Amino acid sequence: MLVVITYDVSTIDPAGIKRLRRVAKVCQDYGLRVQNSVFECIVNSTELKQLKYKLTDIINEEEDSLRFYNLGENYKSKVVHIGTKDSVDLEDTLFM
Amino acid sequence: MLVVITYDVSTIDPAGIKRLRRVAKVCQDYGLRVQNSVFECIVNSTELKQLKYKLTDIINEEEDSLRFYNLGENYKSKVVHIGTKDSVDLEDTLFM
Repeated sequence: MLVVITYDVSTIDPAGIKRLRRVAKVCQDYGLRVQNSVFECIVNSTELKQLKYKLTDIINEEEDSLRFYNLGENYKSKVVHIGTKDSVDLEDTLFM
Repeated sequence: MLVVITYDVSTIDPAGIKRLRRVAKVCQDYGLRVQNSVFECIVNSTELKQLKYKLTDIINEEEDSLRFYNLGENYKSKVVHIGTKDSVDLEDTLFM
Protein backbone atom coordinates (compact mmCIF):
# COMPACT_ATOMS: atom_id res chain seq x y z
CA MET A 1 0.00 0.00 0.00
CA LEU A 2 1.03 3.62 -0.36
CA VAL A 3 1.33 5.53 2.89
CA VAL A 4 2.07 9.23 2.82
CA ILE A 5 3.87 10.54 5.89
CA THR A 6 3.93 14.23 6.67
CA TYR A 7 5.63 15.77 9.66
CA ASP A 8 6.27 18.98 11.49
CA VAL A 9 9.16 18.71 13.92
CA SER A 10 9.87 21.66 16.15
CA THR A 11 13.43 22.85 15.46
CA ILE A 12 13.70 25.61 18.03
CA ASP A 13 16.46 23.74 19.84
CA PRO A 14 19.31 21.36 18.87
CA ALA A 15 17.33 18.37 20.18
CA GLY A 16 14.56 19.23 17.69
CA ILE A 17 17.01 19.51 14.81
CA LYS A 18 18.32 16.07 15.77
CA ARG A 19 14.78 14.65 15.88
CA LEU A 20 14.05 16.13 12.45
CA ARG A 21 17.10 14.43 10.97
CA ARG A 22 16.22 11.12 12.62
CA VAL A 23 12.62 11.26 11.38
CA ALA A 24 13.80 11.92 7.81
CA LYS A 25 16.39 9.13 8.08
CA VAL A 26 13.80 6.56 9.16
CA CYS A 27 11.36 7.68 6.45
CA GLN A 28 14.13 7.35 3.86
CA ASP A 29 14.55 3.71 4.86
CA TYR A 30 10.91 3.05 3.87
CA GLY A 31 10.17 5.39 1.00
CA LEU A 32 10.93 8.44 -1.05
CA ARG A 33 11.00 12.09 -0.09
CA VAL A 34 8.65 13.98 -2.40
CA GLN A 35 8.71 17.30 -0.54
CA ASN A 36 10.72 18.65 2.40
CA SER A 37 8.49 17.08 5.04
CA VAL A 38 6.55 14.59 2.95
CA PHE A 39 7.51 10.98 2.22
CA GLU A 40 5.68 8.39 0.15
CA CYS A 41 6.27 4.84 1.29
CA ILE A 42 5.20 1.56 -0.31
CA VAL A 43 4.85 -0.70 2.72
CA ASN A 44 3.00 -3.77 3.91
CA SER A 45 1.12 -3.74 7.21
CA THR A 46 4.11 -5.09 9.17
CA GLU A 47 6.40 -2.41 7.78
CA LEU A 48 3.80 0.24 8.50
CA LYS A 49 3.64 -0.85 12.14
CA GLN A 50 7.45 -0.75 12.38
CA LEU A 51 7.55 2.66 10.78
CA LYS A 52 4.92 4.09 13.16
CA TYR A 53 6.70 2.56 16.12
CA LYS A 54 10.10 3.96 15.11
CA LEU A 55 8.80 7.44 14.34
CA THR A 56 6.69 7.62 17.49
CA ASP A 57 9.79 6.68 19.45
CA ILE A 58 11.78 9.56 17.92
CA ILE A 59 9.38 12.47 18.08
CA ASN A 60 8.49 14.62 21.06
CA GLU A 61 4.71 14.21 21.14
CA GLU A 62 4.32 17.52 22.96
CA GLU A 63 6.05 19.48 20.19
CA ASP A 64 6.07 17.50 16.96
CA SER A 65 3.32 16.30 14.64
CA LEU A 66 3.22 13.20 12.45
CA ARG A 67 0.45 12.26 10.05
CA PHE A 68 -0.02 9.04 8.09
CA TYR A 69 -2.36 8.88 5.11
CA ASN A 70 -3.12 5.42 3.80
CA LEU A 71 -3.85 5.53 0.07
CA GLY A 72 -4.21 1.75 -0.23
CA GLU A 73 -3.08 -0.47 -3.08
CA ASN A 74 -4.69 1.38 -5.98
CA TYR A 75 -3.14 4.72 -5.36
CA LYS A 76 -1.87 5.81 -8.75
CA SER A 77 -4.98 7.71 -9.72
CA LYS A 78 -5.20 9.29 -6.24
CA VAL A 79 -1.96 11.25 -6.40
CA VAL A 80 -1.55 14.42 -8.45
CA HIS A 81 1.66 16.36 -8.68
CA ILE A 82 2.03 19.89 -10.03
CA GLY A 83 5.26 21.82 -10.34
CA THR A 84 8.89 21.00 -9.78
CA LYS A 85 10.20 17.51 -9.02
CA ASP A 86 8.25 15.20 -11.22
CA SER A 87 6.21 12.51 -9.62
CA VAL A 88 8.19 9.35 -9.17
CA ASP A 89 6.93 5.86 -9.87
CA LEU A 90 7.67 4.51 -6.41
CA GLU A 91 7.35 0.86 -7.23
CA ASP A 92 9.61 1.11 -10.27
CA THR A 93 12.12 3.06 -8.21
CA LEU A 94 12.03 0.95 -5.09
CA PHE A 95 12.09 -2.41 -6.75
CA MET A 96 14.42 -1.80 -9.67
CA MET B 1 -14.10 13.54 -0.40
CA LEU B 2 -10.99 14.29 1.62
CA VAL B 3 -8.12 15.74 -0.35
CA VAL B 4 -4.79 16.32 1.34
CA ILE B 5 -2.70 19.08 -0.16
CA THR B 6 0.99 19.34 0.55
CA TYR B 7 3.29 21.99 -0.84
CA ASP B 8 6.85 23.21 -0.97
CA VAL B 9 7.09 26.78 -2.15
CA SER B 10 10.56 28.20 -2.71
CA THR B 11 11.00 31.22 -0.43
CA ILE B 12 14.44 32.34 -1.51
CA ASP B 13 13.02 35.62 -2.78
CA PRO B 14 10.14 37.97 -1.84
CA ALA B 15 8.05 36.68 -4.75
CA GLY B 16 8.29 33.18 -3.29
CA ILE B 17 7.24 34.38 0.15
CA LYS B 18 4.24 36.02 -1.49
CA ARG B 19 3.37 32.81 -3.36
CA LEU B 20 3.63 30.83 -0.12
CA ARG B 21 1.16 33.17 1.58
CA ARG B 22 -1.22 33.02 -1.36
CA VAL B 23 -1.12 29.23 -1.51
CA ALA B 24 -1.91 28.99 2.21
CA LYS B 25 -4.70 31.55 1.87
CA VAL B 26 -6.41 29.61 -0.94
CA CYS B 27 -6.05 26.31 0.94
CA GLN B 28 -7.59 27.93 4.02
CA ASP B 29 -10.65 28.77 1.96
CA TYR B 30 -11.19 25.06 1.28
CA GLY B 31 -9.94 23.25 4.35
CA LEU B 32 -7.92 23.11 7.51
CA ARG B 33 -4.21 23.44 8.06
CA VAL B 34 -2.99 20.36 9.91
CA GLN B 35 0.73 21.03 9.57
CA ASN B 36 2.80 23.94 8.27
CA SER B 37 2.54 22.90 4.63
CA VAL B 38 -0.30 20.39 4.81
CA PHE B 39 -4.00 21.09 4.43
CA GLU B 40 -6.93 18.69 4.60
CA CYS B 41 -9.90 19.74 2.49
CA ILE B 42 -13.37 18.24 2.29
CA VAL B 43 -14.37 19.08 -1.27
CA ASN B 44 -16.55 17.89 -4.09
CA SER B 45 -15.16 17.38 -7.57
CA THR B 46 -16.08 20.91 -8.69
CA GLU B 47 -14.34 22.46 -5.68
CA LEU B 48 -11.31 20.25 -6.24
CA LYS B 49 -11.03 21.48 -9.83
CA GLN B 50 -11.31 25.09 -8.66
CA LEU B 51 -8.70 24.51 -5.99
CA LYS B 52 -6.25 22.93 -8.42
CA TYR B 53 -6.82 25.71 -10.89
CA LYS B 54 -6.27 28.45 -8.31
CA LEU B 55 -3.16 26.87 -6.83
CA THR B 56 -1.62 26.10 -10.22
CA ASP B 57 -2.19 29.71 -11.14
CA ILE B 58 -0.29 30.92 -8.06
CA ILE B 59 2.76 28.68 -7.95
CA ASN B 60 5.90 28.90 -10.04
CA GLU B 61 6.00 25.46 -11.60
CA GLU B 62 9.77 25.67 -12.07
CA GLU B 63 10.40 26.20 -8.36
CA ASP B 64 7.42 25.07 -6.31
CA SER B 65 5.81 21.69 -5.72
CA LEU B 66 2.17 20.86 -5.03
CA ARG B 67 0.78 17.42 -4.31
CA PHE B 68 -2.84 16.34 -3.99
CA TYR B 69 -3.78 13.05 -2.31
CA ASN B 70 -7.37 11.95 -2.76
CA LEU B 71 -8.50 9.88 0.24
CA GLY B 72 -12.07 9.52 -1.04
CA GLU B 73 -15.27 9.56 0.99
CA ASN B 74 -14.41 6.95 3.60
CA TYR B 75 -11.27 8.54 4.85
CA LYS B 76 -11.59 8.44 8.60
CA SER B 77 -9.79 5.13 9.06
CA LYS B 78 -7.10 6.18 6.58
CA VAL B 79 -5.68 9.08 8.58
CA VAL B 80 -3.53 8.62 11.68
CA HIS B 81 -2.19 11.47 13.72
CA ILE B 82 0.57 11.23 16.33
CA GLY B 83 1.88 14.08 18.46
CA THR B 84 0.89 17.67 18.97
CA LYS B 85 -2.24 19.24 17.46
CA ASP B 86 -4.93 16.65 17.82
CA SER B 87 -6.60 15.40 14.72
CA VAL B 88 -9.61 17.51 13.83
CA ASP B 89 -12.92 16.14 12.70
CA LEU B 90 -13.08 18.17 9.52
CA GLU B 91 -16.73 17.67 8.78
CA ASP B 92 -17.79 18.59 12.30
CA THR B 93 -15.57 21.64 12.15
CA LEU B 94 -16.46 22.80 8.68
CA PHE B 95 -20.16 22.29 8.93
CA MET B 96 -20.85 23.32 12.52
